[in-house]
Amino acid sequence: MNKTKPTEVTVDGFFRRQLNRFSTPFGTKPQELPVEAGRYRLIWSAACPWAHRSVIVRKVLGLENAFSLGTVSPMRPRLPHVDWEFSLDSGGVDPILSVRYMSEIYHKSDQNYSGRPTVPAMIEISSGKVVNNDYFKLTNYFETAWKPYHKKNAPDLYPVSIRQEIDALNEIIFTDVNNGVYKCGFAQSQKAYEDAYETLFNRLDELEKRLSKQRFLFGDKITDTDVRLYTTLVRFDSAYFTAFNTNRNLIREYKNLWGYVRDLYQTPGFGDTTDFDAIKRHYHLSITISPDKEEPKVLPKGPELMIWNSKHNREDLSGQKEKFLIH
Amino acid sequence: MNKTKPTEVTVDGFFRRQLNRFSTPFGTKPQELPVEAGRYRLIWSAACPWAHRSVIVRKVLGLENAFSLGTVSPMRPRLPHVDWEFSLDSGGVDPILSVRYMSEIYHKSDQNYSGRPTVPAMIEISSGKVVNNDYFKLTNYFETAWKPYHKKNAPDLYPVSIRQEIDALNEIIFTDVNNGVYKCGFAQSQKAYEDAYETLFNRLDELEKRLSKQRFLFGDKITDTDVRLYTTLVRFDSAYFTAFNTNRNLIREYKNLWGYVRDLYQTPGFGDTTDFDAIKRHYHLSITISPDKEEPKVLPKGPELMIWNSKHNREDLSGQKEKFLIH
Repeated sequence: MNKTKPTEVTVDGFFRRQLNRFSTPFGTKPQELPVEAGRYRLIWSAACPWAHRSVIVRKVLGLENAFSLGTVSPMRPRLPHVDWEFSLDSGGVDPILSVRYMSEIYHKSDQNYSGRPTVPAMIEISSGKVVNNDYFKLTNYFETAWKPYHKKNAPDLYPVSIRQEIDALNEIIFTDVNNGVYKCGFAQSQKAYEDAYETLFNRLDELEKRLSKQRFLFGDKITDTDVRLYTTLVRFDSAYFTAFNTNRNLIREYKNLWGYVRDLYQTPGFGDTTDFDAIKRHYHLSITISPDKEEPKVLPKGPELMIWNSKHNREDLSGQKEKFLIH
Repeated sequence: MNKTKPTEVTVDGFFRRQLNRFSTPFGTKPQELPVEAGRYRLIWSAACPWAHRSVIVRKVLGLENAFSLGTVSPMRPRLPHVDWEFSLDSGGVDPILSVRYMSEIYHKSDQNYSGRPTVPAMIEISSGKVVNNDYFKLTNYFETAWKPYHKKNAPDLYPVSIRQEIDALNEIIFTDVNNGVYKCGFAQSQKAYEDAYETLFNRLDELEKRLSKQRFLFGDKITDTDVRLYTTLVRFDSAYFTAFNTNRNLIREYKNLWGYVRDLYQTPGFGDTTDFDAIKRHYHLSITISPDKEEPKVLPKGPELMIWNSKHNREDLSGQKEKFLIH
């Protein structure tokens, strides 16, 4: 496999995200991954929306003491292959896992691993191996299997009573929005791009309407689905609009989506884990679908960030007036 | 000179636009270019803001019968050198001048011409040579020296009484806005880009304020300066915001500038000479500061164009209520 070519693009130019390799669930059954404080380390990049989800949920549920967090740089090394690097750490090495690159961890876990090394990834510290890199289900494991370690009065982000509806909307938001922006940005044909663009903005229009009458996607309280929508929306104006050509509208041009995403941003666990500098440098200077492409010399300066703390009045939509409303 | 390298960039990454080569004025003195109907052909590209100015003024003043118009494609050939091409014409050749490339005209005019062949250019049809490519002063010649050929009741876009103020504001708008967006887009260092970005948006903020109390830049009537500001503003959201990283704000986010540019767009001579498709294809697919750069495969789809015909209510700012108010 030639690692310098985009391998996740179909012959007609459509982006097809690779499947996860390590998907054993966490749980109490013998074939499941044991849930045990201090056993794992979560690796994320602040740039990556899939990893950002898991870090928000970790913080909202108070799982910081259950597993530690390692951070790879938003600036990806491209040669000899696309990777993630622990270059933010002293000496360029993760202090717990003693590795420089994510690829080392993936190869330790599977000598024949040939995909992109991805984040988020849960690493078993003792063996130094990836045990789970299922970006789609990871937050659900944190919300369910990891419940014994939740902080006191932790919210229920995945209530049993609406779990089916959450799963269904998560799937839609994944396909059309979370991965939808990547389908726009990584399209290698005009048709692939325009298909994804139409689907994305139709879905955003629909979500804009849904959020005109309720504060969050499932009513007055934040759920797992809000976390998933947030990580794409918060990157949209600073990154996707220009870098991925998702340029019909800025999120700040939508009345309800813009109020909604600021509401979440101003909620503990969301804004305080959002790093616009990392996001911008990653998407504008370091994106890697075509590693042979000339690297840009200039980082776009806009948009201004102070607007993220502006008043949104979304609490008027809910029965209660508290700022932090979670199941 | 290596034509495939950006030659108009300083060592510290600042864009410096080349000077005009052919700047003999039109007039009645012996050393000036004779003003004579049928003698010249104006060449433009619908993509180019400098050329667009001259085509707007030609139409507003009714000079269509004084000199004809030839059009080069927004998609520039890049090899063996950056050029403009008559590929929109039947056979790929201008029907009057019988040439395929602008460079042919420039070389016929000056065998040692080593700059970029540019539009707008006034070509003397009999000799096939460029006689004037002064994009800064060309509209002023149309407004003054070409007055004998203006249509009946043509507006005065360059009134003697405010000519000094017009010249002064034209210079400012050229430096900070018209060429300012290029300084952002063609910057090859972060400092060069950020300097130009700050200057550009400070100037737009100031113009936004100026236009909060008056319909046009010099009051109730359109002047040459409005034409110059228009050609940059109308390209901003569709092209510069993404392609040139001028991404603090969209023009449609400014109350007054957005009303102002739609007011002009809806005025004969402006919107009917504005070709968004050409603009988008040029800036997103065919821009040429770094001809070695990989060509993008995808044309951004947004923004939507129907909003350009929306109501702006700018006439409320003027004493008179007529739609087309010109000196």
